[in-house]
Amino acid sequence: MDAAFVLPVRVYFEDTDSGGVVYYANYLKFYERARSEWLRALGISQQSLAQERRILFVVRNVAVAYHRPAVLDDALSVTLDVAKVRGASIEFEQKVVRDADGALCSSCRVTIVCVDGGKMKPAAFPEDILEKFQAASGSRKS
Amino acid sequence: MDAAFVLPVRVYFEDTDSGGVVYYANYLKFYERARSEWLRALGISQQSLAQERRILFVVRNVAVAYHRPAVLDDALSVTLDVAKVRGASIEFEQKVVRDADGALCSSCRVTIVCVDGGKMKPAAFPEDILEKFQAASGSRKS
Amino acid sequence: MDAAFVLPVRVYFEDTDSGGVVYYANYLKFYERARSEWLRALGISQQSLAQERRILFVVRNVAVAYHRPAVLDDALSVTLDVAKVRGASIEFEQKVVRDADGALCSSCRVTIVCVDGGKMKPAAFPEDILEKFQAASGSRKS
Amino acid sequence: MDAAFVLPVRVYFEDTDSGGVVYYANYLKFYERARSEWLRALGISQQSLAQERRILFVVRNVAVAYHRPAVLDDALSVTLDVAKVRGASIEFEQKVVRDADGALCSSCRVTIVCVDGGKMKPAAFPEDILEKFQAASGSRKS
Repeated sequence: MDAAFVLPVRVYFEDTDSGGVVYYANYLKFYERARSEWLRALGISQQSLAQERRILFVVRNVAVAYHRPAVLDDALSVTLDVAKVRGASIEFEQKVVRDADGALCSSCRVTIVCVDGGKMKPAAFPEDILEKFQAASGSRKS
Repeated sequence: MDAAFVLPVRVYFEDTDSGGVVYYANYLKFYERARSEWLRALGISQQSLAQERRILFVVRNVAVAYHRPAVLDDALSVTLDVAKVRGASIEFEQKVVRDADGALCSSCRVTIVCVDGGKMKPAAFPEDILEKFQAASGSRKS
Repeated sequence: MDAAFVLPVRVYFEDTDSGGVVYYANYLKFYERARSEWLRALGISQQSLAQERRILFVVRNVAVAYHRPAVLDDALSVTLDVAKVRGASIEFEQKVVRDADGALCSSCRVTIVCVDGGKMKPAAFPEDILEKFQAASGSRKS
Repeated sequence: MDAAFVLPVRVYFEDTDSGGVVYYANYLKFYERARSEWLRALGISQQSLAQERRILFVVRNVAVAYHRPAVLDDALSVTLDVAKVRGASIEFEQKVVRDADGALCSSCRVTIVCVDGGKMKPAAFPEDILEKFQAASGSRKS
């Protein structure tokens, strides 16, 4: 898969609904797991950021399209690409693809903003984190 | 609140995350509860539709904006307005508003398509349901 | 229903799984909603307790039995009775009953302990809260 | 870890609540993931069982103890041991252990029954599955 980052995800009963497919809100969990693991791969711990620097990454908006339903037991790949980095926000393009047949199940575009957890107000990314985001964004071009 | 339909929702621990606010995916649950109750108010049972007519209503796409965080114990109002009705899809505008201070927590635009549960393919709304949707859509103008 | 407290709960898609029934973990959400509303009815706000007194109510153990499956659209009643009050813990008996036919879907016994949120260690209930719990417990006998 | 089966699980925001810890119902998701992966390792597909043989594995009861809170970003190990196999039910002992310090976060005992998905009534395990369960149970003794 041609993406900056890929997280494998398995579909369990908890993810499905009585329509027999993955419940639409649960794709947002899959997308968030991939973003969290991408941050971890960059050496960024959200738990440490929250506790030591009182910084939270908060979703500002997300647009999700549902193409084909994923079902119980499916092995999925959740992809992540950095679409844009700004001083206090970062935009991702993500997909959920079924491994067995390569079917595109869902895609999304999501914007995350940096928030001061004390005041719950937008704040610029700390310099060390901004540099990592910009490097990750640049790496997509090559 | 000036909306075609309003569902009161309370925030419980299950809805929150360790950032201290409602988890972003869970707003989609709130939005779906309001759509389900709106259908019920129109006399439409999704359980009966699925079992007797093999018809499912499936989310095609959703765009959500997060304005202000809702927190534990908040009493919220989830609104619903019909934006557009087509032969096999319906579009809603929805909001989550905090009762205590009228703060707009989130808003979304969501498109639902009618699906033949046997073939999992798009299908026209049954005539009786389409009429109810069109009536609900028209009632917004007055 | 002969219980100290009853909370009505509706089953939505979010609650179900692809087995066509309410997912087993989600009954614990229903049980917790009823406990939260019971606390609210006693004038106890968990959000205020956490923020102003750094006190959390934490589940120590729970035993759940699943009798009959609840399904999409079911209107349920979640009951709560106080089984035992101690200085730093309280035990509840709870049930989930389907309104349409009175079927017992699930029952549970759950123990909550009072925790000092700063040290994350057990702590005695504040006196005002203990009194409310004891009064609620006593009211069951009459 | 001395267990018949171990599944690694990571804690994401979706798993936590505003108390700053993993929400109590979500441990049941972790336990169920481990059981599903154990079944998969035995060559048993729940999706196939449901669709081809109309057989569901349903939780009859579960007793969970919460020892220490798991938090965001924790790497956990979810263990599974077969405690008892009967003709139409199987009993597991499971644990959630934090990798970083070996802390026991939670433990549970859960009974699963085999259900005929058509009638939603208990049914004996198919012979091929019962043999796999008995073999797995026996393997624990050595």
